[in-house]
Amino acid sequence: MRMMPLLLALALGSICGVTHAQEVRRETVIPAAALDTATQLRQTALASDLGYRITESLTTEIGPRLAGSEADARAVAWAKAKFEQLGYDKVWTEPVTFPKWERRSESAHVLGANAQPLVLTALGGSPGGTVEAEVVRFADLAALEAVAAGSLAGRIAFIDQKMERARDGSGYGASSRVRSRGPSAAIRAGAAGYLMRSAGTDSHRMPHTGITRFDDGLTPVPSAALSVPDADQLTRLLALGHPIRVRMALDCGWNGEATSYNVIGEMTGSTLPDEVVLIGGHLDSWDAGTGAIDDAAGVGLTMAAGKLIGDLPTRPARTIRVVAFANEEQGLHGGIAYAKAHADRIRQHQIAAESDFGAGRIYGFDTSAPEHAKAAAAQIAQALAPLGIAYTPGEGSPGPDISPFARDGVAWANLRQDGTDYFDLHHTPDDTFDKIDPEALAQNVAAYAVFAYLAAAAEGDFGRAAGGKD
Amino acid sequence: MRMMPLLLALALGSICGVTHAQEVRRETVIPAAALDTATQLRQTALASDLGYRITESLTTEIGPRLAGSEADARAVAWAKAKFEQLGYDKVWTEPVTFPKWERRSESAHVLGANAQPLVLTALGGSPGGTVEAEVVRFADLAALEAVAAGSLAGRIAFIDQKMERARDGSGYGASSRVRSRGPSAAIRAGAAGYLMRSAGTDSHRMPHTGITRFDDGLTPVPSAALSVPDADQLTRLLALGHPIRVRMALDCGWNGEATSYNVIGEMTGSTLPDEVVLIGGHLDSWDAGTGAIDDAAGVGLTMAAGKLIGDLPTRPARTIRVVAFANEEQGLHGGIAYAKAHADRIRQHQIAAESDFGAGRIYGFDTSAPEHAKAAAAQIAQALAPLGIAYTPGEGSPGPDISPFARDGVAWANLRQDGTDYFDLHHTPDDTFDKIDPEALAQNVAAYAVFAYLAAAAEGDFGRAAGGKD
Repeated sequence: MRMMPLLLALALGSICGVTHAQEVRRETVIPAAALDTATQLRQTALASDLGYRITESLTTEIGPRLAGSEADARAVAWAKAKFEQLGYDKVWTEPVTFPKWERRSESAHVLGANAQPLVLTALGGSPGGTVEAEVVRFADLAALEAVAAGSLAGRIAFIDQKMERARDGSGYGASSRVRSRGPSAAIRAGAAGYLMRSAGTDSHRMPHTGITRFDDGLTPVPSAALSVPDADQLTRLLALGHPIRVRMALDCGWNGEATSYNVIGEMTGSTLPDEVVLIGGHLDSWDAGTGAIDDAAGVGLTMAAGKLIGDLPTRPARTIRVVAFANEEQGLHGGIAYAKAHADRIRQHQIAAESDFGAGRIYGFDTSAPEHAKAAAAQIAQALAPLGIAYTPGEGSPGPDISPFARDGVAWANLRQDGTDYFDLHHTPDDTFDKIDPEALAQNVAAYAVFAYLAAAAEGDFGRAAGGKD
Repeated sequence: MRMMPLLLALALGSICGVTHAQEVRRETVIPAAALDTATQLRQTALASDLGYRITESLTTEIGPRLAGSEADARAVAWAKAKFEQLGYDKVWTEPVTFPKWERRSESAHVLGANAQPLVLTALGGSPGGTVEAEVVRFADLAALEAVAAGSLAGRIAFIDQKMERARDGSGYGASSRVRSRGPSAAIRAGAAGYLMRSAGTDSHRMPHTGITRFDDGLTPVPSAALSVPDADQLTRLLALGHPIRVRMALDCGWNGEATSYNVIGEMTGSTLPDEVVLIGGHLDSWDAGTGAIDDAAGVGLTMAAGKLIGDLPTRPARTIRVVAFANEEQGLHGGIAYAKAHADRIRQHQIAAESDFGAGRIYGFDTSAPEHAKAAAAQIAQALAPLGIAYTPGEGSPGPDISPFARDGVAWANLRQDGTDYFDLHHTPDDTFDKIDPEALAQNVAAYAVFAYLAAAAEGDFGRAAGGKD
């Protein structure tokens, strides 16, 4: 359906002797009436606390919801009920099965003359176990990766790499590699345990968890993140000049499989109901906080945006689909399952955007929409501009759960949130509802509502991203 | 010795027929040469990181040091060794015996449909025990104190009183009463357990502990403080409209007696070595953090101030005595023991000042010194002014461990620190060395050095506070 204009253009191209299909392909445009409606919708959203209240409901009533846990199951029921209460036209779930990881307890102490506790948290995917060993510090991942195999036999490897603060979260790339690749580097060096300075920008006794993985053929060792002040403390202790022995005791690990669900709500389009504009966030969270900025906010603000579009006197042409994805945290399981489940309906999807970078104000807009939809993208950007959002082509990337589908060719949009403070809270006990600014969240709802409405009201398609399959 | 000018004045008064002794009492003044030396001392102190390094040493090498714990004993040995390393002329300890309170573990969970963990910490002095009961919220202490006796039978009383932020920490008065009086009010109402919103101004998952007490004749119940975000969460849960049951499990309690020590170092005065200017902080801390702002900073900055005075080419007339007090946190045990041990030598003490309000910049100076020493106090204030310190007569009060001695009539000085952020960290895991600004700490060292040096170099005494005994 979506590709008909292209086929038509190709046919016309043959007839007319035009060689480049896109030269005659119909430009996607957004009608003036839709732009007027979007202005109203923006005002309505800015004055509404609906996104904030949905986020409050999820974080309060369910709290933390580690994928596969009892609370995760309650969160699925919550999301289904919430879509229904909000009057979504269709609400359903799709199963997502994954290995289940559990955290039961964790503690660490410096032993000997400087005996004192350390605050840490197991990395997701870590095995349990108790290690009592001397700590060897490395300033960064490269330093650990450079040591000889076996040279850390019976020690605990500790990477003290600092994370840089940035509005776009760009410091996370290097620090998340310390988390994902550090444990395997430690094992290759012979270490009996792995400690890292948290991938975080705060200075609180709040360790940052997050998923890690172990390279094939290695025997996993207990792996954990120290809070930033504890990493500083351990570094000062090591500078005293005598060996520092630490006892780390983790009770956690993989425990069979679990099935959770992507929870989906739709506001049916008026004239092209089979074409879908997809927005969403992820429903699961890590277990330490209540997953407020990661990612109840993303679920709450996209649920609210869909509801506000559904409340308009006239629905846009296309369907608005809101997805609360299962188990993003442990490997994009929900996004991968969605892409797989909808593989034969990829062409239904016009464009997709996930909110999964906190609850800060959106400051940039970008999309992978192709050339013939650039004018429409610019129209959307213009409608977002009064929200303080700049059009920043070429700077974005799809949200995590959108990425598997984007790789299959679905166009994505990216509404870039200010993440200056995001990594102060990310994956810590401090990720709680009180950290969310209701005005910033309303700005997010307004941006998603305007974007999704205009994409759903556009005349013409958003095509396929370059390299995508049909 | 210190009272000789007064006795002389009284004698002269009799002879001359003057009825009011102070009318002829000698004005205390600070010689110009001492003021010049103080200027040098101030510069030296501002350029020195000694106070910061001593604070680092205590918080790093010992860490948390709950009164009576093994770490507290290590802290006593550390303080004695540190005084000796710094070249103090005399170093000794004085025993302080007190009931020993221990914390072993603590946890809490909301039960039922909204099952989730809550972050809390037992109040010092709380008994252990597990309570599983419905929570009843009170907006403030007065509301709980107003309920009928027995009306909360089998429930958990929860006081959600917010603390106000203030530079002078004035919001702590009301919130510390919630901690000290709330548990007894809960017991009188029949409650089986007590929860309070932490006496803190932060919004982190950091519960604030602190000592509580139970009125005579009441049977203590498990009593704990929720972190501020957890208090908010519990309040939101209670607003859902159905009963909220919580399981709180505290393993803690009194366990016999312990003996710790006031650790004392002296820089001997040149001409009046038996007269003492006393400065200090307290050596013990709560167990959650490393007691950096409360009160390693106070110990570190006064140890450094004494050392810098000791390093001067010429010692002041009087002795500088630096005291690292034992067990301030659980009831001023060190200060009371000091006052008792030195009761027959009260007159030796010219003036005393304790630093126990963090590591923020000092902005105000005050003293209880009597009328005949006001000119000298003004001279000290003038020497402190270049540090950004205002003379604010009538606004201060003695530090906690000084107060028992001040009640006996020893004059006190108060160097008022900016406590705007103090109650973000106070009695939490977050009270760690990284929170201290080295420049602010150097300003504190400079202020204490200038004050103590000038008081020790003054010609004439600082008399006795009104109502003091001889």
